[in-house]
Amino acid sequence: MTTRVKKAAAKTASHNGKPAPAAEANPTIGEYLIRRLQDYGLEHVFGIPGDFVLGFYSMLEESPIDVVGMTREDNAGYAADAYARVNGLSAVCITYCVGGLSVCNSIAGAYAEKSPVIVISGAPGVDERRSNPMLHHRVGAFSTQREVFEKITVASAALEDPLTAFREIDRCLEAAVRYKRPVYLELPRDRVMARCPYPHTPQTDRVKSDKGALDEALAEASKLIAAAKKPVIMAGVEMHRFRLSDDLLRFAEKHSLPVAATLLGKSVVSEKHPLFVGIYEGGMGREDVQKYVEESDCIIVLGAFLTDIDLGIYTANLNPGRMIFATADELRISHHHYHNVLITDFVKGLAKQDFRTVKRPLLPRPKSEGRKFVLKPDDPVTTERLFLRINQMLAANMVVVADVGDCLFGAADLQIYQATEFLSPAYYTSMGFAIPASIGAQTANGKLRPLVLVGDGAFQMTCLELSTAVRRDYNPIVVVLNNKGYTTERFIQDGKFNDILNWNYHRMSDLLGAGWGFEVHTEGELDQSLKAALAHEDAFSLLNVHLDPYDTSPALKRLGKSLAKRV
Amino acid sequence: MTTRVKKAAAKTASHNGKPAPAAEANPTIGEYLIRRLQDYGLEHVFGIPGDFVLGFYSMLEESPIDVVGMTREDNAGYAADAYARVNGLSAVCITYCVGGLSVCNSIAGAYAEKSPVIVISGAPGVDERRSNPMLHHRVGAFSTQREVFEKITVASAALEDPLTAFREIDRCLEAAVRYKRPVYLELPRDRVMARCPYPHTPQTDRVKSDKGALDEALAEASKLIAAAKKPVIMAGVEMHRFRLSDDLLRFAEKHSLPVAATLLGKSVVSEKHPLFVGIYEGGMGREDVQKYVEESDCIIVLGAFLTDIDLGIYTANLNPGRMIFATADELRISHHHYHNVLITDFVKGLAKQDFRTVKRPLLPRPKSEGRKFVLKPDDPVTTERLFLRINQMLAANMVVVADVGDCLFGAADLQIYQATEFLSPAYYTSMGFAIPASIGAQTANGKLRPLVLVGDGAFQMTCLELSTAVRRDYNPIVVVLNNKGYTTERFIQDGKFNDILNWNYHRMSDLLGAGWGFEVHTEGELDQSLKAALAHEDAFSLLNVHLDPYDTSPALKRLGKSLAKRV
Repeated sequence: MTTRVKKAAAKTASHNGKPAPAAEANPTIGEYLIRRLQDYGLEHVFGIPGDFVLGFYSMLEESPIDVVGMTREDNAGYAADAYARVNGLSAVCITYCVGGLSVCNSIAGAYAEKSPVIVISGAPGVDERRSNPMLHHRVGAFSTQREVFEKITVASAALEDPLTAFREIDRCLEAAVRYKRPVYLELPRDRVMARCPYPHTPQTDRVKSDKGALDEALAEASKLIAAAKKPVIMAGVEMHRFRLSDDLLRFAEKHSLPVAATLLGKSVVSEKHPLFVGIYEGGMGREDVQKYVEESDCIIVLGAFLTDIDLGIYTANLNPGRMIFATADELRISHHHYHNVLITDFVKGLAKQDFRTVKRPLLPRPKSEGRKFVLKPDDPVTTERLFLRINQMLAANMVVVADVGDCLFGAADLQIYQATEFLSPAYYTSMGFAIPASIGAQTANGKLRPLVLVGDGAFQMTCLELSTAVRRDYNPIVVVLNNKGYTTERFIQDGKFNDILNWNYHRMSDLLGAGWGFEVHTEGELDQSLKAALAHEDAFSLLNVHLDPYDTSPALKRLGKSLAKRV
Repeated sequence: MTTRVKKAAAKTASHNGKPAPAAEANPTIGEYLIRRLQDYGLEHVFGIPGDFVLGFYSMLEESPIDVVGMTREDNAGYAADAYARVNGLSAVCITYCVGGLSVCNSIAGAYAEKSPVIVISGAPGVDERRSNPMLHHRVGAFSTQREVFEKITVASAALEDPLTAFREIDRCLEAAVRYKRPVYLELPRDRVMARCPYPHTPQTDRVKSDKGALDEALAEASKLIAAAKKPVIMAGVEMHRFRLSDDLLRFAEKHSLPVAATLLGKSVVSEKHPLFVGIYEGGMGREDVQKYVEESDCIIVLGAFLTDIDLGIYTANLNPGRMIFATADELRISHHHYHNVLITDFVKGLAKQDFRTVKRPLLPRPKSEGRKFVLKPDDPVTTERLFLRINQMLAANMVVVADVGDCLFGAADLQIYQATEFLSPAYYTSMGFAIPASIGAQTANGKLRPLVLVGDGAFQMTCLELSTAVRRDYNPIVVVLNNKGYTTERFIQDGKFNDILNWNYHRMSDLLGAGWGFEVHTEGELDQSLKAALAHEDAFSLLNVHLDPYDTSPALKRLGKSLAKRV
């Protein structure tokens, strides 16, 4: 996938290569913000209007940027998160407090999983705050919302003063791109049209690696990898966020290094690549992959977070003494640390190093791979067989979007073809991500057809965002794993609080007035419905797949077995 | 309406009058919290389970408290808010971050409008945080969620240490009751079963008024009211929150003082009461009410916030020099302030004062009142006529729940019979409040039948909470004012961003598998559907009422006229 993020034009006010017309030399804050979004390649903004942001919405409507109206703010946040994962950067635009505080959770997820979303919030005018009035949407002080977002963004600014607003916009946008995390811009409604009091040119202030540390780290890493008998790379999601997947592959191919990936990093490298050995997730993953990674004498972790889920809920057994661990936040070799080394420089540097390595035998491909799925038309659908059938239909134009729960664990075993084809909140694990995220993914790349895997519990949270699919003629295929409740939780602690109402999920199209619905009990029905869904390219298709409430994916079964061993 | 909040038994560990059994002297944190919720009269807790709170959920399930499972956390927050408005106190129980950060907006609304909701959030165990691991749901530091809630609650505590946890529970619950605002309790999953290391008895620390200030304020107020020629009381929502409606009425009746109310305070006094003169909302309200209040030489504001919406978006003209202004936060007479006077003492004290007053002539009842609504069966429904028809059907067992938008402005003119019969987020104005709030209201009082007035935009945000109505056999009548978009915003700034998809709202029952749906174009259809909805007491009824996108209520028309005068 090519990225649409262009390098922001630094130190020049010219736009799109054309000399800046006179009016643009002193733009309004609103104009400048829109221009900068375009500099960074944004063609869409997600959101919901509200009175404190209506002026800016009008300005957006007149700009080349396409405003994607959603049904709820939190869904706009999820969509923006997914758009950023595909496109490299995104923006969500909402009104004060009732809008802003509604995107807290989706923005927190983007923060946790390093997805750069620009949050633009309207706010009461600076001039109308003077007598401290009780304006609607206000909670506590006028600064409350900004103070909340300071906790869940990497940079934030209230654009209250035209003297500093333009620099603040530059600073925050650059921080989003540098740290791959959300930033927050608050735009009071009486400042949208405020003009820059001086000629301002966009500023950037890029950081560099400490050259001494970088060189030493590269030399040490090279030596260790060269000496290793069983090296393995573990690729994480930052490889995608920092557009380093190609560099990683170049490095792996040059030295014939086998590559595993984490769950959050799934699809960072194509799972069809000959060097790919599988998804590592401790005792939750395939046993042979776990063994292959854990017996390595040199694990090269590149851009992985190593969360509890990546580590199969502490069933992992990785020796830090045998690890080269590089992320955007730290670089550690064995038990010592290098400071001020950028992940980009380290990975690109590794790819340039020349040394000889042992060619470690690759893991044999799992027996199931490539084996044809033989339909048992009258059998009830099980979770395991559902994923086998889905695996068979995956195509290069598809993006798999997995929600939280067993649909995520099960999806780990799907074989994903190429980069960015798998989106999931595999660390923050916020239920309800998938459907709005599929809107974001298809907006970012209209050629992608989303395949959404979602449990019934998560579906009930955000399913109505299919409304936006209807409005925009998108055609996601939504597979609802209907196991009548929160099945992953039943597995931890059962109780009637894990039950939910069994809806006629396949009737969603009756409510929305468009789309295709299928009710699925048997493998035969599953097969027919998936074929029909593929054929219906005009609108969304929704499969209500009935599953036993206590049926689980092989991954969740493996986790249970692995945890049981420890008791 | 009687309140279910019992006075918390202070300075005794006995429970429900029975002597405490030995085991209860040193309860676990989880047990103690549940016991204290019961002390305060809570019979229900709203929420969604998640792995960091499952232990406490199991404990709740075994307790007499009924756990009301919702489809989304923010909806659980709205429901808890409404339950607190009816019941006096409520609780919402959610998991860490993905749950907690999802209730930010509804809890912010409860904070802004003074509704005491206890937020109980699960959290990672204290012991599992030691090596600072990347546990799922985590964003930033482990303290991030608590820091966010410190901004939108009046008291908060992380129950990490059994030495202080029990006192902290007491402190936070008492703060919720005293300030009528949300509080936040974070319960790490490994502390649910932690026992109190010493015998703890529930503590309260009640504040008292400054007697000198109280006496002087009452004397001054009495003198001003006695001297006034045109006194009027303006009743606000705090009269309901602090259970002072009866005292207020006693005061008004004793001195024949006319009573107006704010929009947020609508239904604080029965609108059928002979002294009631109408809802004051500046130029947005009825012109005669505006004149009556604004020409008063002594406006006695009791528990009103005077927000921009209460003041008809600054079309109000109230002279602070002629005002006695008493709320929970301040007491002001003309331009001077009294500190440390509790609103409860002031209002109860006023009711006890003896002085003579001029009997100000009351406002004549509006001509429309009591006039029979004559059906025009073939006419398309207009917003104005819709409210006239609804006004005709209001009964004493109904609670009107109005969402944000023209359904709120229009609802201002409905005639509400008695206290607590009207719920609306008339200050914070968060769209999507009404449907989940109706679940909270009916849970708090099973005899109430909710009549929900909601625009199509707000409906799209939270409508699926009707699922919970189905699960619990609730029977709200939901009237969707389908004007195909955000009509109130069209009025401020039109643009295609105000359009939304036109759903078959009346088909909701097909998706949920229960409930009654009606499509309404004409007055005849409206009449038939409302009659059918009243007759169908077994489940929810939903009316999809088609309205012109530019049709507005009389109140919104008045506001437009009033604002136009100023241009």
